[in-house]
Amino acid sequence: MNTTTSKKTKAALVTEKLNQLVGKENVFSVLEDRICYSYDGSKQKYVPDVVVRPRSTHHVSAILQLAHENEIPVYPRGAGSGLTGGAVPVKGGIVLDFTPMNHIVEIRPEDLTATVEPGVVTQTLQSEVAKYKLFYPPDPASAPFSTIGGNVAECSGGITGLKYGVTRDYVLSLQVVLADGSVIHTGRKTLKSVTGYDLTRLFVGSEGTLGVFTQITVKLLPLPEKIETLLVFFATTQDAIQSANQIILNNLLPRALEFIDKSSITCIQGYKQEIQIPDEVDALLLIDIDGRETSVKAEASLVKEIVRKNNAIRVTSAENAQERDALWEVRRAISPALYNIAPYKINEDICVPRSRILEILERIDGIHKRYPSLKVASFGHIGDGNIHVNVMYDKGDQQKALAERMIEEILSNTVEVGGTISGEHGIGNVKSAFLPLEIPPRELEIMKNIKHLLDPKGILNPGKIFLE
Amino acid sequence: MNTTTSKKTKAALVTEKLNQLVGKENVFSVLEDRICYSYDGSKQKYVPDVVVRPRSTHHVSAILQLAHENEIPVYPRGAGSGLTGGAVPVKGGIVLDFTPMNHIVEIRPEDLTATVEPGVVTQTLQSEVAKYKLFYPPDPASAPFSTIGGNVAECSGGITGLKYGVTRDYVLSLQVVLADGSVIHTGRKTLKSVTGYDLTRLFVGSEGTLGVFTQITVKLLPLPEKIETLLVFFATTQDAIQSANQIILNNLLPRALEFIDKSSITCIQGYKQEIQIPDEVDALLLIDIDGRETSVKAEASLVKEIVRKNNAIRVTSAENAQERDALWEVRRAISPALYNIAPYKINEDICVPRSRILEILERIDGIHKRYPSLKVASFGHIGDGNIHVNVMYDKGDQQKALAERMIEEILSNTVEVGGTISGEHGIGNVKSAFLPLEIPPRELEIMKNIKHLLDPKGILNPGKIFLE
Repeated sequence: MNTTTSKKTKAALVTEKLNQLVGKENVFSVLEDRICYSYDGSKQKYVPDVVVRPRSTHHVSAILQLAHENEIPVYPRGAGSGLTGGAVPVKGGIVLDFTPMNHIVEIRPEDLTATVEPGVVTQTLQSEVAKYKLFYPPDPASAPFSTIGGNVAECSGGITGLKYGVTRDYVLSLQVVLADGSVIHTGRKTLKSVTGYDLTRLFVGSEGTLGVFTQITVKLLPLPEKIETLLVFFATTQDAIQSANQIILNNLLPRALEFIDKSSITCIQGYKQEIQIPDEVDALLLIDIDGRETSVKAEASLVKEIVRKNNAIRVTSAENAQERDALWEVRRAISPALYNIAPYKINEDICVPRSRILEILERIDGIHKRYPSLKVASFGHIGDGNIHVNVMYDKGDQQKALAERMIEEILSNTVEVGGTISGEHGIGNVKSAFLPLEIPPRELEIMKNIKHLLDPKGILNPGKIFLE
Repeated sequence: MNTTTSKKTKAALVTEKLNQLVGKENVFSVLEDRICYSYDGSKQKYVPDVVVRPRSTHHVSAILQLAHENEIPVYPRGAGSGLTGGAVPVKGGIVLDFTPMNHIVEIRPEDLTATVEPGVVTQTLQSEVAKYKLFYPPDPASAPFSTIGGNVAECSGGITGLKYGVTRDYVLSLQVVLADGSVIHTGRKTLKSVTGYDLTRLFVGSEGTLGVFTQITVKLLPLPEKIETLLVFFATTQDAIQSANQIILNNLLPRALEFIDKSSITCIQGYKQEIQIPDEVDALLLIDIDGRETSVKAEASLVKEIVRKNNAIRVTSAENAQERDALWEVRRAISPALYNIAPYKINEDICVPRSRILEILERIDGIHKRYPSLKVASFGHIGDGNIHVNVMYDKGDQQKALAERMIEEILSNTVEVGGTISGEHGIGNVKSAFLPLEIPPRELEIMKNIKHLLDPKGILNPGKIFLE
């Protein structure tokens, strides 16, 4: 009883101190508020002890100093849209809600850079820079709601990865608050810099376990003049994959090159009847081509030629925003549609060398045969080898255990063919048990040592990446 | 005397052991051989105790294990073309000459990757992948002789940085031998991967101080269909810089956007009389535009329009390889030409946000007024803000000291305007005294701790990056 009391007293004291540090209006300790921060896109539930909404780097620094002194876990959180549990407070403690720190500090067209606070929604960044005809290329499916801070923490990818790379390729400089509250700066706001070790990219993708970002400077590109979208129907998966390969072997680099399999198509049709796809269609490719108007035209006709040679059943193309949007509706409908066939879903994001895509899909089919009660649908960024394999299952512990066993087999097979267990979602606590499948002991040890170096008390997003 | 004897005996024993490990034919201990490895592009001279030419990862591992046990410094070396002393054996010990490990392990067009040994010359990599219509974009001036291992160690930049980024943006995966001889693998040979911390980019740019690469997998792009080169004459520096800014503000991203100042022009004319540049020309821009044929045409005419609006005196364009080469001769002639006006030269590679280029050039002019006996010439990658400022001086310690003082002022001013003291050459031992100008104490401490973590005995390229 004494322990509980002293724990309660300590919690009360910490809340009191937090009130002083950042103002009562930014500290939330009643249960109803805390429950809102107990889950994220991974659908787990861990209720934090307190939620704080910092308004400045100074706030973040003060909070971390307090947390460090008292060894309280801290979980930075953006929109909570992450799929591997990056934002769930698995060990209680303080959730830092960055949504109020959503200012675009500056956009510098001449320098091709933008500096933003971590709570800026990714799509807001994209549309704000577009006003200057500038382009922030990383485009995760979550862009309409996820924040740039979360994107940097997870090193988000998305549909533009093949042509434009991922978040890490665009981060030039970070302001980071370390575990003890000290504020550091990494990199420079210049397009090149090689002074000392690359701390910037050590923090990118570190999932909130090494430091907390309070300012992010990204590199921008000129906004492409034109985008054309092609939706292509195929009678076989082989034809679709062969087409994707031929596109790349013909020296084309589409802005997006997405694949949708038969199971996904079936789900979409059950979910949105207005999307009409003939029965004989077994696979789709959805392709965005961008650039100067003249080159988009040339490349689109090359792509059409290639897919026709590879037995495309139908090619629909769209050039204006509204028509393009309609074609992309097919892709957007998948995730909600999958819930129509089973109430639970595990969404993986394996990535393999492109030449191994057909092999991994065949292996997954083979594995599936041994789990007949589960449903599987695969779709995603075939252009960069990053496939979202979804395993759907019914209610019940047995079904869940089966799904998890099947996922483990898929991940092992992915590593066997030279792939990675996470192309863009990160590890979080959802995949930490699988990390050793890919990362050997010595490499894991180096990573853990770096973690210990930067966060010796282990207060930053504990329970993530590494299995304890 | 005893110490000397025992040191000699130890050296002899180590050489004997090296002979056993990698074969006598790969170990060089006579002075004449060792002198060849005593210098690099930084023109310092430190003679190593022994030079070893490893032929395999196994060799490198065995050598490092031996060095680790005996606490002998090890210096990985490619072509020795680095400009900041990365390859000079400042504390004696073993130079590892990677030039025999120059095999292209595989080129995978479908995966858009190539895997190579570190001793492959960068231009060889470029031309080998070009046979598959593929493109390795980083293009340092040293590409015809520097090795990819050195490029990765220094995170080389070059003329394509504005449009295509730098070496770090292309490295997917590394095989690394650690200080104790253990072999690790970082990253995956996939276009996306976010499993654990980004060890790959921790090693890229670490200048041989954290580990020794034995295999490198890079990402490739499709080879651009066409390149057009424009050489533009301006009567004032302002017009040239204004033109460069306008090009970027008009949504254009040239493959190369190079600036050459009046001093450089004067030097070139003294050096190569066949290059004819009218007297009234005070600045040049050399511009490469690449992409699909149709878009190159469109963009080149836009660029011509912009430079004419900004008072260009003359625009010469070239589309075929031979003519383009002739225009680039102007740029290539600068470095040798600079030695014509003074026997010694310090070549800096500051990088500033593009909007601060004119300001930094003006500041450098101002500083120069206080060092009238020195000559200054500036040229370089204006597109990404990376300017090579060259300070030339005559023989004598006093002149050298003056040049070094002037350089320090230039570097301080660079940091003041938000720039970096090294855009692409690295720190080595040449700039380690200046590193604290840019990197604050806490950030430096983190870097040193990482160094200690991976190389606790400090045997890997000691004396580089950090001032001791």
